[in-house]
Amino acid sequence: MCEANAYLLTTDGEELILESVDRVVPHEDGLLLEDIFGRRKIINARIRELALVDHKIILERG
Amino acid sequence: MCEANAYLLTTDGEELILESVDRVVPHEDGLLLEDIFGRRKIINARIRELALVDHKIILERG
Repeated sequence: MCEANAYLLTTDGEELILESVDRVVPHEDGLLLEDIFGRRKIINARIRELALVDHKIILERG
Repeated sequence: MCEANAYLLTTDGEELILESVDRVVPHEDGLLLEDIFGRRKIINARIRELALVDHKIILERG
C-alpha cells in the first residue's frame, strides 16, 4: 500500500495528524484527509510538501 | 516504491504531466514536481486531489 502519513509543521517540529492517508482534497475549511479505512479529518492547513517515497505529507497552517 | 503519476485535468480528461513523482512542493509559479530520478517540472497548477493508493496526483489550472 502506498498511503502516507500526514504531519503538521509546528514550532516544535512535525506533529502526526493522520496515518495511512489515501486521499487529500481541498476543502472550504482547509484540507480533507481520508485514510485507507475511510476515516476522515478536516484540518485548517495547506500542503507544504509531499515526499511520497518517504510516505510523508507535510502540512502547514494557512 | 510509492511514487505517483501527476495528471492535469483538462476539458478532454486527464493529461499525464509527469510519472513516478516523489516530491511536490509549492512554487511561486505553481507547483514543483520532482520524480524519483530527480527530474523536475514546474507547472502552473494547484492540487485538485491526491489519491495515493491509486498512485494519482490530480492537478488543475489555478
